[in-house]
Amino acid sequence: MRSPERVVAALRARRELWEPSPGLVGLRGDAAVLRDRIACEIASLTRSLADEVWHVPPGLPLGTLARADYFLSFPQWLTAASHLGGATADLETVARAADPASSARGALVASDVALAPAVCYHVYAELAGQKLSRPVRVSAECTCWRHEAPRFSALIRDWSFTMREAVCVGTPQEADAFQRAGAAAVRTLAERLGLSTATVHAEDPFFLPTGRGRALLQRLKALKHELVIEPPGAPPIAIASFNHHERFFGDAFGISIADGTAASSACVAFGIERWLLAFLVAHGPSARDWPEVREATDPTDTHDVSEVMAGSAAIATRAERS
Amino acid sequence: MRSPERVVAALRARRELWEPSPGLVGLRGDAAVLRDRIACEIASLTRSLADEVWHVPPGLPLGTLARADYFLSFPQWLTAASHLGGATADLETVARAADPASSARGALVASDVALAPAVCYHVYAELAGQKLSRPVRVSAECTCWRHEAPRFSALIRDWSFTMREAVCVGTPQEADAFQRAGAAAVRTLAERLGLSTATVHAEDPFFLPTGRGRALLQRLKALKHELVIEPPGAPPIAIASFNHHERFFGDAFGISIADGTAASSACVAFGIERWLLAFLVAHGPSARDWPEVREATDPTDTHDVSEVMAGSAAIATRAERS
Repeated sequence: MRSPERVVAALRARRELWEPSPGLVGLRGDAAVLRDRIACEIASLTRSLADEVWHVPPGLPLGTLARADYFLSFPQWLTAASHLGGATADLETVARAADPASSARGALVASDVALAPAVCYHVYAELAGQKLSRPVRVSAECTCWRHEAPRFSALIRDWSFTMREAVCVGTPQEADAFQRAGAAAVRTLAERLGLSTATVHAEDPFFLPTGRGRALLQRLKALKHELVIEPPGAPPIAIASFNHHERFFGDAFGISIADGTAASSACVAFGIERWLLAFLVAHGPSARDWPEVREATDPTDTHDVSEVMAGSAAIATRAERS
Repeated sequence: MRSPERVVAALRARRELWEPSPGLVGLRGDAAVLRDRIACEIASLTRSLADEVWHVPPGLPLGTLARADYFLSFPQWLTAASHLGGATADLETVARAADPASSARGALVASDVALAPAVCYHVYAELAGQKLSRPVRVSAECTCWRHEAPRFSALIRDWSFTMREAVCVGTPQEADAFQRAGAAAVRTLAERLGLSTATVHAEDPFFLPTGRGRALLQRLKALKHELVIEPPGAPPIAIASFNHHERFFGDAFGISIADGTAASSACVAFGIERWLLAFLVAHGPSARDWPEVREATDPTDTHDVSEVMAGSAAIATRAERS
């Protein structure tokens, strides 16, 4: 395994990775093609765990996060959408300013919309108040934002990143089975990609001291696991997490199951850019050292294999042209 | 053609479309599967016009927009990322507030980061200061934000939407040829999807009166075209635009070509959700009425065909289960 710093430095030197602003990462070249291959593999995995694909928007009401106790748990990460007021005179002031960027920054108005810190809040919010006669199992991807400045680190801890989740809302047994199936599928994918990983018990970094009781419970009841890579000279990096929320979100959003009790939920979450990093840490930053990704055995996965082939073709095309 | 309002109302009634907040749209069910099919077709098209795929982040510096004269042109749409300050006492105040959503909203701090209003600014910014020995042709997709409240209209004018662009930076001739090839490819795709469209001369809605001169020039010099649908009882809706910027961005970002002059640029831009709407307006909101999408003839497009097949399989699975 290479060190994450060296891998990122190599991409930066090839101009395949750049940061327009701290915590925001762009990719091009082989790294961008590889990112697509990996994102396809992960999409295929979450679809195999789910009954439906959702498209969720990149923002949600601050009130939805409050309902999920987000501000008790992770206020430090909150990122929200703001905009300029609509008054023509104010817009003209910005437009005609000597330094319009500063002028605009000073004139921004807060909104009620948070940028999503995770995908699954959308699922609980959309199911709010419903009685489920069968489990809801969803695959969805979303651009997420967590303001972890000044600890930003490209591909490891970005302000904005891509999260894909498979989410299950149903009976306790259905949530259990989903979490177990998810963990097994993720380990299989990690092996297929040649990643050396470990599964560890984990807890969320709850902000308030009262959250520490919840963190302790997560550990004692083994509600949260993470799949981590352990690169040399760096702390472990979680590339996926398997979370059982028991009835927490069912209670918070008034979602019930057939017997009238609150629904249980579980989710399997992937950080796409961290999987890219894990692959590069395992196989190096040069495309010539990357193994072919083995074909998925599930026949419904053929489109992902072709995506991979299309990705390779794109690399070839690039190489020919350069 | 159906009216956009009736199509959106039908999706809403089936709970396949919902708005967590004004201007933010979620999709599930057949509509979500169809959105994926269409997004794949458009991705394939932009890749066929480009030499490379980029992944651009969803935010960029306000200063980059200023460099592109964005605040002279479209300040009314600006959306930016804000966050809470890092001081523990302030975070505790939010966490312990009786109404943490309001408390958080009141404590938000503006940042220097705009949420991208379009994909192509990223391309000019990354190429800034470079001398190009050959054209750069990029395919990229990005979550974009334009604050068009109170005119939000689901799938037509959302605060947040998905834009895919093919962008060319090079000589005037290369930009010309790119814009022409893009327009032809887009019309072919629209026909293949059974959409009834028209190509019209267009201009950007520049904010300042001084921008009106630029708008007039856009029309006189035919620099901007749009592919529109013209549904009954509704204004035309642009689903793609073909833009020739001449040397505007080359000048603004110091990008030059071999002869030392400023680079020209052109882009072809797609609003994915508007293509979904156009398909539904043409074929109706019920999946049973949707035509099969013909196979792409380009053999490198096979992955899209399989995506479509996977999409159909997903619909079948859903129907069986329900």
